[in-house]
Amino acid sequence: METPLDRLRDVLPPEAIDTSAEGTFRASLDNLRLSRCPEAVLRPADEDGVAAILALANEHRMPLTTRGAGSATTGAATPADGGWVLDLSGWKQLAVREATMSAFVQPGVTVKALDNAAAEAGLAYPPDPGSATHATLGGTIACNAGGLRGAKYGVTRDYVMGLEGFLPTGEFVRWGGNLRKFACGYNIRDLWIGSEGTLGIITGAVLRLIPRPVARRTALLAYSDEPAALAAAAAIRKRRVIPSILEFLDRETVAATLRLWHRVAPDKLTAFPRAWTADTPALLLVETDGEPVQADAEMAAVLEAAGTHAAHRHTAASAEEAETLWTVRRSCSQAMFELGDTKLNEDVVLPLDAQEPFFQAIERLRRETGLPMPTFGHAADGNFHVHIMYDAGNPAHRDKARDGIRRLMEQVVALDGAISGEHGIGLAKTPFMALQHGAAELAVMRRVKEAFDPNKILNPGKLLEPFEIWNHPRTKVRLPWDH
Amino acid sequence: METPLDRLRDVLPPEAIDTSAEGTFRASLDNLRLSRCPEAVLRPADEDGVAAILALANEHRMPLTTRGAGSATTGAATPADGGWVLDLSGWKQLAVREATMSAFVQPGVTVKALDNAAAEAGLAYPPDPGSATHATLGGTIACNAGGLRGAKYGVTRDYVMGLEGFLPTGEFVRWGGNLRKFACGYNIRDLWIGSEGTLGIITGAVLRLIPRPVARRTALLAYSDEPAALAAAAAIRKRRVIPSILEFLDRETVAATLRLWHRVAPDKLTAFPRAWTADTPALLLVETDGEPVQADAEMAAVLEAAGTHAAHRHTAASAEEAETLWTVRRSCSQAMFELGDTKLNEDVVLPLDAQEPFFQAIERLRRETGLPMPTFGHAADGNFHVHIMYDAGNPAHRDKARDGIRRLMEQVVALDGAISGEHGIGLAKTPFMALQHGAAELAVMRRVKEAFDPNKILNPGKLLEPFEIWNHPRTKVRLPWDH
Repeated sequence: METPLDRLRDVLPPEAIDTSAEGTFRASLDNLRLSRCPEAVLRPADEDGVAAILALANEHRMPLTTRGAGSATTGAATPADGGWVLDLSGWKQLAVREATMSAFVQPGVTVKALDNAAAEAGLAYPPDPGSATHATLGGTIACNAGGLRGAKYGVTRDYVMGLEGFLPTGEFVRWGGNLRKFACGYNIRDLWIGSEGTLGIITGAVLRLIPRPVARRTALLAYSDEPAALAAAAAIRKRRVIPSILEFLDRETVAATLRLWHRVAPDKLTAFPRAWTADTPALLLVETDGEPVQADAEMAAVLEAAGTHAAHRHTAASAEEAETLWTVRRSCSQAMFELGDTKLNEDVVLPLDAQEPFFQAIERLRRETGLPMPTFGHAADGNFHVHIMYDAGNPAHRDKARDGIRRLMEQVVALDGAISGEHGIGLAKTPFMALQHGAAELAVMRRVKEAFDPNKILNPGKLLEPFEIWNHPRTKVRLPWDH
Repeated sequence: METPLDRLRDVLPPEAIDTSAEGTFRASLDNLRLSRCPEAVLRPADEDGVAAILALANEHRMPLTTRGAGSATTGAATPADGGWVLDLSGWKQLAVREATMSAFVQPGVTVKALDNAAAEAGLAYPPDPGSATHATLGGTIACNAGGLRGAKYGVTRDYVMGLEGFLPTGEFVRWGGNLRKFACGYNIRDLWIGSEGTLGIITGAVLRLIPRPVARRTALLAYSDEPAALAAAAAIRKRRVIPSILEFLDRETVAATLRLWHRVAPDKLTAFPRAWTADTPALLLVETDGEPVQADAEMAAVLEAAGTHAAHRHTAASAEEAETLWTVRRSCSQAMFELGDTKLNEDVVLPLDAQEPFFQAIERLRRETGLPMPTFGHAADGNFHVHIMYDAGNPAHRDKARDGIRRLMEQVVALDGAISGEHGIGLAKTPFMALQHGAAELAVMRRVKEAFDPNKILNPGKLLEPFEIWNHPRTKVRLPWDH
């Protein structure tokens, strides 16, 4: 009897079907590093191939998980129930359309590749997740990725004008287009965005581009502690300035980052401004942008509003010096592992005026669990990355981490915050969906899923089914973005 | 036997139930002026009242249409199948929260009232539909209203951070919150926005505000014809300037507006700048805003890019003079009735580089039907208001209008445009949904509707059921926004 895989071989060329150990392993995990091997990785050359795969997947009730680079941190790209992986990372058509200040992209184009192409036309694609050099647009649309510049420029959703692709049931559809307004029935475009590959397969997108900011100004402000840094961030808001970046780093993050650099590149430490290294401060890293006169005026307003209480301040005198500051910032994620071998990586979001009680709650949890909880993030939009670090081999630590993360999420929701601002839910945050959403909200989400995917084939196990991530070992593997 | 209305009287106070002829007539129509009388207009004082109404409506399968001011132009607020109208225009709580640059509003607050309250805190609510003084936020969220400043500031959707209200099945739910990022499962918030009251009842919203632009600069540029004006708009885009407003008015619109002013206020015509009146030009009305230095720099760039081919140009020397220009612009909608007693009012949207062929198509249709088709709109986002004017008492005109609008929509879709940019579908545009969307797209929209509203009670007859608007007489009535 013909297996589903046999039937696939009837409709796809051999090079589109990868059942190798290496290929299926690579497609078995994302940046959460939780591995579930699929039966096959499928790389169709065109839409006809996707349609053929969907037809068979529906017929055989075969789990089908779409994948780009796999840089998601939540397990959103992990084929939780095995089945087939649809790898669209090779779909790299990209066309910038200058006259409409937009671009058509296939899902495998990376965020960085699009922004580079836009730059050649004096345009920019603002969403800038930390993974921009690797993350694909298909994946960042599916997860509604955010980034550092969210407060001024918004997130992925704000740049998606049109999507095309397949319903789970196999029909090719389009939502929106190369159009700056669209009010033609239910907004399925924005429902697809952030649905993490469970409601459809994106095979093309029309993205809005903006005139490229020509100037950037960067400054580093050091404060004695977190409340002082957060008060400075509030003072900037009160001045009605929205910097393009307003990054906050708590003292534990700064200490871990300095420890990492001491260990791996002590010679580079001399290039760190004193504001970074003195007395292990809490930091604000600020960027303003736009026309030179505007970037200068906004930076002056920032320094006036936030600089008075800073223990140290440092304004980057050149683009190179600014780049040094960002290099250090970019090493923060890696530096967390100075504090434990396993990371629970949360990206909670709070109302802008709830940041102070939120950091008091983190301080309490840190004391009560005894675990490091280095926290940094985007103070201008209230989206913070809390890392609960522990040693997975130590059962007591693991219990404390599991307990700590639940209490963290409870605190966030009690402060009218949300369990995810930009990473999404995937597998890792499913246990907290019932904190975020009431039963009626979850029930209507389930009915929406059924309305799109009656056979439950697309990316099963995500979003709506609680998965106890801490009970599942992670896989040690070197991924393309690891330093 | 107790009727549904009797049972309502058991759960609502008498003053919340209006069955008067005047009350039900007022609630029978919106700005489309197509009247369908409901059995009762319900004005509950609080959420408990809404819940009680929904329980009865579900039990009796009673059509329930939510309503604000009724300024929708599409029949979205018309109770097409009778039943009950839920009038939330009296729900007017409004609280600006300065520290989070946001506001909580109940659905009856008008767009203008919110912007005025924001202004007191140095903030602004940018979406500015023409109906802003009357339109409620509940209605503008339900229809995802746009406005003149869409290209620079986006539409209603871009300012909605959180919604709360009821599922059609009666459960109270919240989507998002006072949060600038949110990635926690399916984005029902953005599905509700623009669903025209068919998927839920909005009883509260958290809206994002922005620092209020302190300066505005206004200019009027006159061109010999439409292609020249559109070429100038393209030149502005090519300069990578996005003005806060870039309004285009075709020659037929300008002629109709002058005719109206000649008729009703000839003494005021002397205040019109010559750029408006000379040789019946096609016009661009441009506004830049921001800090004074930025507004000035952008206006200089606009004039440099677009001014060279203008037959006349006029820069407003004062805020009062600018206000005169906008008063004239605001009379355009009314002026259409100089050309016929009935209006088919479309708000199509085109890719930014398809404006020239679009106006060629309008010119062809104008010739072929012999009907006036005055057109104006937002050249920076491609959203144009086409008005097919005819005399309803003339059957030949009516046939030509019906034929003309269908061919217009076919042209729009052939140019990769959309049948509605900011008004939505309601009743009036339902005949064209099958031009815009394929069968699979419409089918999944229907399944979404069923997932939310299995008893089909909320605002039935809208969006997805073709309604031949031209076969139904409009009602002559003076509405609050009529001049």
